[in-house]
Amino acid sequence: MTELREDKDFVKAITPKSRDYSQWYVDVVTKAELMDYAPVKGCMVIRPYGYAIWESIQQALDPRFKETGHQNAYFPLFIPESFLRREAEHFEGFTPQVAWVTRGGGEDLAEPLAVRPTSEAIIGSMYSKWIQSYRDLPVLINQWCNVVRWEKATRPFLRTSEFLWQEGHTCHRTEAEAEEETLTILEIYRDFAENVLAIPVIAGLKSDSEKFAGALRTYSIEALMSDGRALQAGTCHNLGQHFAKVFDITFLDQDGQLKHVWQSSWGVSTRLIGALVMVHGDDRGLVLPPRVAPVQVVVVPIPSDRDGELVTTAVAAARDALTTDVPGLRLKVDDRPEYTPGWKFNDWEMRGVPLRLEIGPRDVKAGQVVAVRRDTGEKSTLSAEPAALAQGVRALLDDIQRGLYERAKVFREVNTRSAASVEEMADVMEGPRGFVLAPWCGSPECEEHIKEATGATIRCLPLAPAAAGGGRDGGSGLSGEDRSGQGGRSGETGRCVRCGQVPGRPAYFARAY
Amino acid sequence: MTELREDKDFVKAITPKSRDYSQWYVDVVTKAELMDYAPVKGCMVIRPYGYAIWESIQQALDPRFKETGHQNAYFPLFIPESFLRREAEHFEGFTPQVAWVTRGGGEDLAEPLAVRPTSEAIIGSMYSKWIQSYRDLPVLINQWCNVVRWEKATRPFLRTSEFLWQEGHTCHRTEAEAEEETLTILEIYRDFAENVLAIPVIAGLKSDSEKFAGALRTYSIEALMSDGRALQAGTCHNLGQHFAKVFDITFLDQDGQLKHVWQSSWGVSTRLIGALVMVHGDDRGLVLPPRVAPVQVVVVPIPSDRDGELVTTAVAAARDALTTDVPGLRLKVDDRPEYTPGWKFNDWEMRGVPLRLEIGPRDVKAGQVVAVRRDTGEKSTLSAEPAALAQGVRALLDDIQRGLYERAKVFREVNTRSAASVEEMADVMEGPRGFVLAPWCGSPECEEHIKEATGATIRCLPLAPAAAGGGRDGGSGLSGEDRSGQGGRSGETGRCVRCGQVPGRPAYFARAY
Repeated sequence: MTELREDKDFVKAITPKSRDYSQWYVDVVTKAELMDYAPVKGCMVIRPYGYAIWESIQQALDPRFKETGHQNAYFPLFIPESFLRREAEHFEGFTPQVAWVTRGGGEDLAEPLAVRPTSEAIIGSMYSKWIQSYRDLPVLINQWCNVVRWEKATRPFLRTSEFLWQEGHTCHRTEAEAEEETLTILEIYRDFAENVLAIPVIAGLKSDSEKFAGALRTYSIEALMSDGRALQAGTCHNLGQHFAKVFDITFLDQDGQLKHVWQSSWGVSTRLIGALVMVHGDDRGLVLPPRVAPVQVVVVPIPSDRDGELVTTAVAAARDALTTDVPGLRLKVDDRPEYTPGWKFNDWEMRGVPLRLEIGPRDVKAGQVVAVRRDTGEKSTLSAEPAALAQGVRALLDDIQRGLYERAKVFREVNTRSAASVEEMADVMEGPRGFVLAPWCGSPECEEHIKEATGATIRCLPLAPAAAGGGRDGGSGLSGEDRSGQGGRSGETGRCVRCGQVPGRPAYFARAY
Repeated sequence: MTELREDKDFVKAITPKSRDYSQWYVDVVTKAELMDYAPVKGCMVIRPYGYAIWESIQQALDPRFKETGHQNAYFPLFIPESFLRREAEHFEGFTPQVAWVTRGGGEDLAEPLAVRPTSEAIIGSMYSKWIQSYRDLPVLINQWCNVVRWEKATRPFLRTSEFLWQEGHTCHRTEAEAEEETLTILEIYRDFAENVLAIPVIAGLKSDSEKFAGALRTYSIEALMSDGRALQAGTCHNLGQHFAKVFDITFLDQDGQLKHVWQSSWGVSTRLIGALVMVHGDDRGLVLPPRVAPVQVVVVPIPSDRDGELVTTAVAAARDALTTDVPGLRLKVDDRPEYTPGWKFNDWEMRGVPLRLEIGPRDVKAGQVVAVRRDTGEKSTLSAEPAALAQGVRALLDDIQRGLYERAKVFREVNTRSAASVEEMADVMEGPRGFVLAPWCGSPECEEHIKEATGATIRCLPLAPAAAGGGRDGGSGLSGEDRSGQGGRSGETGRCVRCGQVPGRPAYFARAY
């Protein structure tokens, strides 16, 4: 059957990463049928295979939110213009991207309605009705929904005019509780990204120029894509009392005083699917970590004129053993007669299925199953005996999950450099890119100069690990010395990489999506 | 403690059904915190308690869709005006209700975008790209999303400008397969309504005047609310080839011919939450079937100055026993010190929690737990021994689920009448309302006359049970004799209730939401 497994034409359909990374990305997301372009400017269709990844993401995150006391709800899609305007900074930040409904039910509307770009304003107006007393706090609400931000340049999953996300919106009695909530969610995001998506991330604080419009402080998790660009993979905002003051969200505290609540908001979106593609994918297509793969194991029977029935029986036995002994396993048997095994191998590799099992007549006779890993291409044989097969598949899937994370982490470490000057940083950004970890004095002027000279922005100021669990405030989570385990290189501490005068805090710089 | 349990003021806050049904409904949905009015015309907020019911609905329906081969996906919120226009009947049907985006990213749009009222047009345009060969069929896709239909008169959950729903959109090789799919989903809806929501429904065919704009045939499930009005609880459309022809969805069949696909679409929405309220609720508030209740069992400790610790220990033991022995049980212990037991009883009754367990010092000493059913108010004692307690709670929840369904079914049977003339039907509609089952000749004139004279519309022409499993076409599922088990009364067969001349098919008439 060997010649059938080499279906060169098929694989050629994906542009190699090294030739054109953007085209490679588009090829992968379209040919693996994660998405398709919609006949609406900047919008996309999330096809079933892509949506199944989103469902895996939801199934991993939603219980984590609920275990930490959050409940889901649903707020309206439309926000009156006057509500958006109330928080000036917020309005300025979002209005260039807003889609406006101006007609409804055959009539012009008296007031235009924004299609939500984010829901702080509409949710804030409800919280002011619902919250009266300290007993009503904390309010811990999340919603899964669509949002719209009109984008000029779009890219599937990474930047589209409409996308799906979750947005948490919470209210607290004290500033410390709001900060603790913000950092609790940041830690959930970090844990989820690393342990479910197998994407190592840097958790840290955004500089003022990069923070959310209307927030006191924004934290994010930042991931490194395989082309050396960074991607913001999730954000958590400590909103302070900004929205509470404009929407009059007050409560009678235990001491009899009327006070404004302290708020947080936080979200991750379908752009995580783009991150999965760019962190793990290769020239054969998608590579999916088992924990989010819509199909974790594909079984491909190798047909045989003489021993066809033998193979069919063995495939059914393997399927039964695995679905019984590996609860929740997402397994598919590809017994389509119209395709050759070789075509199927390429097809499922392109779709990133973590593990392929091949069962042919010789395997049946030898009492074995051939297992091929998507991440390394490594081939091994497993015993076809049910318990041993289940055990073998479980172990391989665990190993693939771990292996993908480790590989991505090594890539990030190799691609995190120090720089003694802006010129050095520019050389890195013109060359291999990746992260540069360097001290920054905190001045917007130095930040802006570096951006203009190198194309790199400050992705985040890393948190010391101790703070991620719930420090008192953002400041205390930062430190001149790097305790995050990501550093240890020369150059990231000391005086500001640009002005060379003021002592700086370590900052991750990168060109970003 | 008896005097504490009677908290009259609290219960008075809900208007009795008999005094003002509409106000009763609004009182229940707002006071039980299912929803709140949003500061946007016709829109509402689904609060966490209401949204948790929607999550239960999703968790019951989504696996039923997947088991029958459907996959979820996501299509854009916006539909270009020209796409909506392509199917003339569809456009005419929906355009009065459409909200239009006319500005985006600071510019006027060249073409207005409809905020989806339903997605046949946008999905049809994608299917025409994706489908080439008979091998690509069937396509079985569902999406969970928000839709917008600008409404003049709105009512929480029942009719709002924005609502949440699922919409299935399928493509098939033959007319028979499309019809089979339509009836398969109709049966899923019926089974779900009756066995999960405990709402008995009539499954049947819509008359032409009530069918979906652009469909060949529409089927629905129809439920009877406790005020005698009907509510359409779900619809399934056999779209024929209407959309396939305007969106050019063709495939090369096995015989080498290029053919148009046959399509179906189907949906249920958050209006089901309104149906739950109106079918099961009473003057004390919400009554929820255990299978969708966000909290199935609430445990209320009866405090005691002398034996407080004893009670606390017993409550913890009961909670542990139940969460261990009843997997997935949604249980809450209400140990808030600031409220009396009586206040809590009223509060959880108002929120419709199916079963309340009370544990006081005397119960602890007697080795028992007091159980109070929300549906009947019936009080019983259960042994506090862990296995017996779990067994007792399980049995009570099953009994409540069944009891709610039976009660609603009896109510519907009592409120399904025959009528020998339009005048008789008008008397029923002016009096007790409910369903009238009467023969209809099929003419739009008779249908329109009845509507004007009685205020009642044809809710559906009931299917013979044999057809619900997947009959060849809609016509064959209908029959002059009623085999659906809902009839047997005089008057529903024979000549048309209005013209008295042409033999009629049985039809359910009612005033509807």
